[in-house]
Amino acid sequence: MSLPAKVKIVEVSPRDGLQNEKDFIATGIKVELVDRLSAAGFPNIEAASFVSPKWVPQMADGAEVMQGIRRRPGTIYSVLTPNLRGFEGALAAKADEVVIFGAASEAFSQRNINCTIAESIARFEPVAAAAKQAGVRLRGSISCALGCPYQGEVPIESVVDVARRLLALGCDEIDVADTIGVGTATRVRQVMDAVTKVVDPSRVSGHFHDTYGQSLANILAAMEAGISIFHTSVAGLGGCPYAKGATGNVATEDVLYMMDGLGVNTGVDLNEVVDIGMWISSRIGRKTSSRAGNALAARRAA
Amino acid sequence: MSLPAKVKIVEVSPRDGLQNEKDFIATGIKVELVDRLSAAGFPNIEAASFVSPKWVPQMADGAEVMQGIRRRPGTIYSVLTPNLRGFEGALAAKADEVVIFGAASEAFSQRNINCTIAESIARFEPVAAAAKQAGVRLRGSISCALGCPYQGEVPIESVVDVARRLLALGCDEIDVADTIGVGTATRVRQVMDAVTKVVDPSRVSGHFHDTYGQSLANILAAMEAGISIFHTSVAGLGGCPYAKGATGNVATEDVLYMMDGLGVNTGVDLNEVVDIGMWISSRIGRKTSSRAGNALAARRAA
Repeated sequence: MSLPAKVKIVEVSPRDGLQNEKDFIATGIKVELVDRLSAAGFPNIEAASFVSPKWVPQMADGAEVMQGIRRRPGTIYSVLTPNLRGFEGALAAKADEVVIFGAASEAFSQRNINCTIAESIARFEPVAAAAKQAGVRLRGSISCALGCPYQGEVPIESVVDVARRLLALGCDEIDVADTIGVGTATRVRQVMDAVTKVVDPSRVSGHFHDTYGQSLANILAAMEAGISIFHTSVAGLGGCPYAKGATGNVATEDVLYMMDGLGVNTGVDLNEVVDIGMWISSRIGRKTSSRAGNALAARRAA
Repeated sequence: MSLPAKVKIVEVSPRDGLQNEKDFIATGIKVELVDRLSAAGFPNIEAASFVSPKWVPQMADGAEVMQGIRRRPGTIYSVLTPNLRGFEGALAAKADEVVIFGAASEAFSQRNINCTIAESIARFEPVAAAAKQAGVRLRGSISCALGCPYQGEVPIESVVDVARRLLALGCDEIDVADTIGVGTATRVRQVMDAVTKVVDPSRVSGHFHDTYGQSLANILAAMEAGISIFHTSVAGLGGCPYAKGATGNVATEDVLYMMDGLGVNTGVDLNEVVDIGMWISSRIGRKTSSRAGNALAARRAA
């Protein structure tokens, strides 16, 4: 197997992991989560979303979170910015990176934002221009890259087309996101092979959900395609709105356990992350979805 | 990725999945489980264990289970036989295959059966000879092949040594079993590469546990090493005595979902297996550990 010597783990739990929690999570808990993740060594943390509180009430305190955290030198703090207003908030909050997004599925784009894929990306032009002008890193996320809850299969060419558009907007990094977790390894390999023909592999990330338990196999396949950036969420926080009760983002602990075993350097301390997973799970009243986290905690207790 | 066109899935839930359940499961439920798995198309089912009921009370009704099931032509019904007495029971019960086993870890062997690895395998000589004489298929299982709860790392040479001994006893198939689920993909690849130097790859199987969530990645790595037989357990039945509360055998549904996605033929109907997983989980009062099973059931309900 041809694997990278080093990967960058982007911890998305403060944003993607928590955003669908129904009960509002106190700002202090969010700040502590980000601070603990920083201390564990993550090079990139998706810390907040500057989206309308009407859409995502859980993320209404993005500015307070960004103000409350202690920044670790070397860590990139990213925030989601759906529009220019969000970008201005992100800039005021001194975000290191802003994230824009578009689906690779026409059906998803039409049903969720009532426009074509091309239109949805074009809407981000002002945000992208403002980010470039402000010298803020720009990341572009391609959702439904491995499948769509409405149209099912998503053509690889659609994913590549969105990647090209995001690249044209000036994105420094591009996420290939399996939003609903339906992808399997061969398809992941094919999608990554196609995307890395138009974007340098060092700038492409893989974002996988464990809805069908496929994430680690998919990460392995993506690494074999030259991908070395992966999004993970401690304790597997984050569900799937299209499969009620299903698991969400791939658990950081499971990914770190694999990377440690493979001898792939992450710069992150798995033991600290196991603690963080147990802590945040108990704070929000959930059981961890991380198998490695659960097993390592059980081993300690024994 | 170089993948086999076809894999054989050995369903181990009736034996490995249920054996550690505390409350005795009625024989009728065990029989129904095997029958449903047969109907779903599994080519090989580990149906029972002919072990002393003092050791494993849950498996005390092995003879009744074997008598009660309806045999599907083409399906191999395997049973575990720790000694000659067990073998005689298995023969009387018309098992198609008997399974013998040994750990690749000296510490495990000493602590569990108070003898060396070599002695533990030698004890199976009478069983192996009897199986050969009776014309019954013989399978040999190498436990702790990826790690040991007592000694930690297990040398690859120990795994190969046990494989050689099992082969010398006449085993038709040899299982490389990650009993405690600690292995990761690169190590799996290395172990499989080494074992397949002494045993033809078509006769080697991979038996993985999801204790640390690594099973699908490990199966993918094993397939790339030429392995095309895998053990799975519906709903992920079977825990891990060395990590309380941890998940057990890799869930059949998750593996079938992956194989279907990869275009690897299994001959088994995933939808039927999702039903079986939900049914057996409710019968024994557990939640399914299968992520694909859970998501597919949720999708149906929606």
